[in-house]
Amino acid sequence: MSNKVMDKIGEVFAAARNVLVLTHISPDGDAFGSMTAVGSVMRALGKNVTLVVEDGMNDEFAYLPLADKVKKRLPYDGDYDLLIAVDCGDEERMGEPYLEVQDRPIIVNIDHHITNTGFGRFNLVPSSTSSACEVLYTLFDHLNYEISQDVAISLLTGIVTDTLCFRTSSVKPETLSIASALIKAGADLPSIVSRALVVKPFASLKIWREGLNKMKLEAGVAWTTLSFKDLDKPSFDGGSNAGLASMFSNVKEAACGAVLREKEDGRVVVSLRSRPPFSVAEVAVELGGGGHAQASGCALDLPLEEAEFEVVRRLKASVAAQKAALLKK
Amino acid sequence: MSNKVMDKIGEVFAAARNVLVLTHISPDGDAFGSMTAVGSVMRALGKNVTLVVEDGMNDEFAYLPLADKVKKRLPYDGDYDLLIAVDCGDEERMGEPYLEVQDRPIIVNIDHHITNTGFGRFNLVPSSTSSACEVLYTLFDHLNYEISQDVAISLLTGIVTDTLCFRTSSVKPETLSIASALIKAGADLPSIVSRALVVKPFASLKIWREGLNKMKLEAGVAWTTLSFKDLDKPSFDGGSNAGLASMFSNVKEAACGAVLREKEDGRVVVSLRSRPPFSVAEVAVELGGGGHAQASGCALDLPLEEAEFEVVRRLKASVAAQKAALLKK
Repeated sequence: MSNKVMDKIGEVFAAARNVLVLTHISPDGDAFGSMTAVGSVMRALGKNVTLVVEDGMNDEFAYLPLADKVKKRLPYDGDYDLLIAVDCGDEERMGEPYLEVQDRPIIVNIDHHITNTGFGRFNLVPSSTSSACEVLYTLFDHLNYEISQDVAISLLTGIVTDTLCFRTSSVKPETLSIASALIKAGADLPSIVSRALVVKPFASLKIWREGLNKMKLEAGVAWTTLSFKDLDKPSFDGGSNAGLASMFSNVKEAACGAVLREKEDGRVVVSLRSRPPFSVAEVAVELGGGGHAQASGCALDLPLEEAEFEVVRRLKASVAAQKAALLKK
Repeated sequence: MSNKVMDKIGEVFAAARNVLVLTHISPDGDAFGSMTAVGSVMRALGKNVTLVVEDGMNDEFAYLPLADKVKKRLPYDGDYDLLIAVDCGDEERMGEPYLEVQDRPIIVNIDHHITNTGFGRFNLVPSSTSSACEVLYTLFDHLNYEISQDVAISLLTGIVTDTLCFRTSSVKPETLSIASALIKAGADLPSIVSRALVVKPFASLKIWREGLNKMKLEAGVAWTTLSFKDLDKPSFDGGSNAGLASMFSNVKEAACGAVLREKEDGRVVVSLRSRPPFSVAEVAVELGGGGHAQASGCALDLPLEEAEFEVVRRLKASVAAQKAALLKK
C-alpha cells in the first residue's frame, strides 16, 4: 500500500468536520465492520460522523459498536465535507444514499475489490488484501490511530466474515498478524465468529434438510434443487443457498457443488462452489453469470428441471476437462 | 512456558540418537501433526527417528510430510534412547506401542491437556495452549531450530484442527502470530483447512440428512436421533455425530444441540454441544459422561427412545436454569 496515499488520506481525515460513511447495498460483515470501524475512529478524532446504508443494519451484526447509529437514509442534505466509501467497488453500489448527497464532498475510496473503479479523489484499494477491514487496519496503523476495543471488534468482524474465518486463499501472513493484534486490542474472536459466521436460524436447517433430501452426486458434481414450493417461506436468504453449495463442494468425491433455487417469478438462481484446483467460474460465465474461481453463480430463465439439466451437464463436462488438464501437467 | 525446561529438553534432544515418537490412540490432526513435525525436526538434527501410533496413519492426513513413515507397531524392540510423547495426556493413551518399548528410554512429554499426568522425565504441558503443535512451535522457536516448510505444514495442521480453524476459545493472539509465521515458512493455510477440516465423504452428508429429517427444536434444545437401522453402514464415525451436534448448537433459537446415536450393541452414544455462555458439561456428568463446557458426551445403556426422553428432559431443565442464572446477573 502506498504510504504517500495513506499520508494524504490522513491529512484529509484531519481536515474534515462532517463525515459521511457509505458502503455497498446488500451489506455483509466486511461492509458493516468497515463502516462502524471508520465511525468509531472518526468519533475518536472528534468529527461529526454519519453512517448510512440503504438496507439498514442487519440483526446478525447488531453487536457491532455504533450498530444503533447506522441509518437507512441521509438524516440531512449536504454539508458533508468528506465522504468515505468502504468496501464498495463503484459508485452505483452505494445505492440511494449516494444519490442524496449534495455539494459533492471529497471522496476517499477504501476497498479491496479488484474490480474497483477508482471513483474517489483518493483511492486505497489493494486488491490482494483479504477485506476492506484489513486495508483499514493498515491505514489506521500507518496513521498511528489508536485501535480501541470498539475498532478492533469492527475490524475483526470484517476480516473473519470475508475470509470465512481465515479459510480463503486471500489470507496472507499479515492477515493473521493483524487478527492477532486485534485480539490483543480486545476483540473476542470466538464470540465474533459465532455471531457473525456460524449461528443460523432454524429455518436455514430446514432448507438444508430439503436440499439434502434431493441431493445427487454424479461424475464429480454434487448438487440439489429447491423448488419454490419446497421453501418454508419466500424470504429464503442467499446465504443458506451458498452454504449448501459450499457443503457440496466439500464432498470428498466431488470437485464442485451446485444449488439451483427456483424463485417466485420462475427464474432459477444458481450458486456454484468448487474446491481448489477446480474452478466453476467458466461455467458461470457460459451461463451468463460470473464470480470467482471457487465461488460463482448465475440466474437462468428456464424451468427448474431444464435449468438443472443444463447446469449439471456443463459442470460435468467442465470437471472432466479440468481433470484431464490436471493429469497432463 | 518455562525456558529452563525448554533448554533442558533441547539438551536431551541434542544427546539422543534413536528417537521414538508416540502419540495418542484415535489420533486427530494435532496428534498426527505434532508427531510428523517432531519427526521432521529430529531428521534435520540427524537422528534416527521412528513414528508409531497403534491406529496407523489416517487417509485424511496423508498429505503430511512423513505420513508414509508412520507405523502401527514398533519396527524393532529396545534401543531407543529417547521417547517423545506428543499430545498425549497419560501413558495408557499411547496404547500398544508404548507397552512394546523396552529398556525404558528418557521420556519427554509435550502436550496441552489440562488432565496431563506429567508422566515424562521432562514435561512441557502448558494447558492454556491451543494445541500440542502450538507448544512445539514455541519450543522449536526457543531452541532456534529452523522451521522448514515440512515442519510448518505439520504444525499448522495441528493448530487448525484443534482450534476448528481458529474458532475455539483456546485461540490467543500468539496462536494467530504463530500461524502467520507458519504460513511465511511455506504452509498453505487454505489447502490445509480444506484437507484436514472441511472435506467430508458423501456418506457423512447422508448421515446428516437422516439427522436433519428427524431434528426437533424445543425450549432451547435442538436434537436428533439416529437409530442403528438409519445408518448406511455400521462404520459411522464420531466426527459426523459431533459435526451434526455442533450444527444444532449453532441454531439461533437453541442454546445447545444433541445427537443420540444407537450403536450395534444397543447402547446409545450421546454427543452434546452448546454455544457460550451455555454449558452441557453438567448434563453429561449427571449422565455418567464428561467433557468440556461446550463439547461433551456420554453413553447410555437405555433403548433409544428412553435415552432421548432422558437427555432432552435434562437439557431443557439445564438450559432453563442457566437462562435464569444469566438473567439474575
